[in-house]
Formats: sequence, structure tokens, C-alpha cells
Amino acid sequence: MPYVNIKITKEGATADQKAALIKGVTDLLVTVLNKNPATTFVVIDEVEMEHWGIGGLPVEEYRKKLKAEKS
Amino acid sequence: MPYVNIKITKEGATADQKAALIKGVTDLLVTVLNKNPATTFVVIDEVEMEHWGIGGLPVEEYRKKLKAEKS
Amino acid sequence: MPYVNIKITKEGATADQKAALIKGVTDLLVTVLNKNPATTFVVIDEVEMEHWGIGGLPVEEYRKKLKAEKS
Amino acid sequence: MPYVNIKITKEGATADQKAALIKGVTDLLVTVLNKNPATTFVVIDEVEMEHWGIGGLPVEEYRKKLKAEKS
Amino acid sequence: MPYVNIKITKEGATADQKAALIKGVTDLLVTVLNKNPATTFVVIDEVEMEHWGIGGLPVEEYRKKLKAEKS
Amino acid sequence: MPYVNIKITKEGATADQKAALIKGVTDLLVTVLNKNPATTFVVIDEVEMEHWGIGGLPVEEYRKKLKAEKS
Repeated sequence: MPYVNIKITKEGATADQKAALIKGVTDLLVTVLNKNPATTFVVIDEVEMEHWGIGGLPVEEYRKKLKAEKS
Repeated sequence: MPYVNIKITKEGATADQKAALIKGVTDLLVTVLNKNPATTFVVIDEVEMEHWGIGGLPVEEYRKKLKAEKS
Repeated sequence: MPYVNIKITKEGATADQKAALIKGVTDLLVTVLNKNPATTFVVIDEVEMEHWGIGGLPVEEYRKKLKAEKS
Repeated sequence: MPYVNIKITKEGATADQKAALIKGVTDLLVTVLNKNPATTFVVIDEVEMEHWGIGGLPVEEYRKKLKAEKS
Repeated sequence: MPYVNIKITKEGATADQKAALIKGVTDLLVTVLNKNPATTFVVIDEVEMEHWGIGGLPVEEYRKKLKAEKS
Repeated sequence: MPYVNIKITKEGATADQKAALIKGVTDLLVTVLNKNPATTFVVIDEVEMEHWGIGGLPVEEYRKKLKAEKS
């Protein structure tokens, strides 16, 4: 009876990729814990880039900063 | 001081139905646990159909599959 | 296919009260949105008092403060 | 390795305000618990007004009611 | 930068099984969306049986009911 | 009316540190968005080390691996 919530930044995941996440996570729970797929929920949240922070910055600024540091 | 999160698939719930969920859940917490409505939060998330998986499939495909099996 | 998460402070809710929450929320989703109970999940989290904050304070201190202000 | 989720009603927070929340929460976790910012995630959810309930009512109706009671 | 939360009922999953869930979900996000494992979090919640409801009942009662209906 | 959930690994945060998180996050929401502390909830979850994954591994194994790579 698992419930899985996957949060990713919104940057172009396709319907096929989302379906692959749903299938992959469900298969994993069947394989590892013998769960019943019919009562396994997977909910995907796509989070706007400006709503996701890492390193104290919105994710796009964080990536720019990392890039600048490397170059 | 309860916090309740209700996740439903996005398929046309009206503002009145959402208000009924908010009222119903709050009343329930008052009745069962004597909670104070003024500090009871209810947050509703409407989840896109392609973001909700069950049985290893996005929900619309899952419903089609169930229907096909029954007929 | 709803998923409901109820968070309450841990202060002695009984198994019967929890069962009443599960039944009440599920009935509400059936009544208001015609949802199928067999695919309606309700997950209850009991949160330790020192882990729940309101008004900038852990809940027990907040209640004491309110009480002191009233008296 | 903290994960922080901030839910606010959707009523016009700017990108700068959201960035200030991300920075402020991350700094707090560094200061209080010595966490590493590079593995500190902050996810902000803006919740539609009609999806947020308090006092058994959607938030806008609740505010109107409070205002009416005070006047 | 994904964040994944897996909720399962608490009924004896081993540390190895939990590690397999963490590895499996992370690999899936790498394969499907080319995500960086170093910034992929997986958080598992084991939920007490009496805190998980389905079909309007705590999960153990629900399973008994299903079993009784089948026999 | 914000709701904030802070998830940290369970490794000895004290009651004072948790109170500092509650106060700090609430003050931040007052300062940045002019929110009312009396309707600002902060919920802290302490997650068992074996329940938190990063880099495809439970966090303790991940830290050991990072350390081994550095030395």
C-alpha cells in the first residue's frame, strides 16, 4: 500500500518520462517488498525553477555559480 | 493544531466541492479530537492526471486497462 | 484515488479516534467527490509536541504564553 | 542534508521574496545545526487561495468573516 | 535535484530492503531523467499500521475484511 | 498562514536547537512576507539515518564513501 511522491524541477520532462518513473518505482516496490501494484500510488510534482532552492540560492542561480567557479 | 493535506486528481472539482472538503475535514477534527478550527489548516492539491500513477501506469491508462479487462 | 495526510500533535489520540478519522475522511471523499474508498488512502502522522511550532514557539510554550496573556 | 518545504498562499510573493526565503532558511540550518548548504533543499509551494482552508472555510471567506466579526 | 518520499506500512522491511529502495529510485532518476545522484534525496517513512487507512478502515481491518469476503 | 516542514536526519538535535529552527523560520516569514506568526505552523521531522538516501546510498554509507574518496 505504498505512496511515493517524486519532486523534480520543471524543465521539460515528457509524458513518456513521467510514465517511466511511475512504472519504474512501482516495479521496484513489487520486486523489493512484494507490494501490490493496484494499491501503489505514485505522485509526481514538477516544481518551478524559482521555487527550488539549493546552496541558499534558487536552482538556476546555483548552477550558474557552480559553473562560474569551475571555469 | 492539525494540518491536513488532501491530494486528488485534477478532473473538475468545483470551488463548492473544495469548500465542502475543507468544512468536512475541519468538522471531523473538531468532533473526533476536539481540535480548534481556528488553528486547523486544510490544503488541497489537484494533481494532473499524467502525474498520478497507480498499478504502474498513469491513472487514465490504468482506468482504460481496468475497463478493457472487465469487458 | 485520493491521498490524505493528517498531521496532529501527539497527545493521546486513541486507536478508535484514529479509526474514526480514517472513516470520516474517506466517507467525505465518497460523498463530496464520489471517490472509490478502495483507492482512498489516509495516512495519520502524530507529531511530537516539541516538533510542532506555532507563533514562533514549540506548541506547549505557545499554549502557556496564551494562557498567561489571558489571565 | 535537510529538506524544507514552505507552503504559502498564492497572493503575489515576488521572485526576490522567494529567493529571500530560500536564503534565510538555508542560513538558519547552517547556523543552528551546522548543515551543509550544498545539500540543503528548499521547496516552495504557492497554494491557490481556494485550496487553503482555515476555520473550516477557504481562506478568503475566513478573512472576511474575521473582519466582519471585528467591525 | 530530485526529492523522493516513499511511505510504506511498518511491517518488517529490513535495512537491506530500504537500501535497495534508495538505490533503485536513484538509479531510475539517473536513467530516465539524467539526474545527478549526489543531489538526489530519498526519504523513507514507515507508517504504523493503525495510522494507514484504506477503504475507510485501518489497513489491518481492511485486509481482514477483504479476506473474509473472498472466503 | 504558512506551513513549513523541516526534515533533518536524526543525529542529536536538541530541544533548544529545534526551538531555534521554529523561531527562525517564523521570524523569516514575518520579515519577508509579513505573515502572522499566530497562523504560521512549523513541523520538524527527524528522519532515521537508514531512512535517508543520497547518492543512491543510505546517508551514513554515503558519508563513508565520500571520506574514503577524499583520503
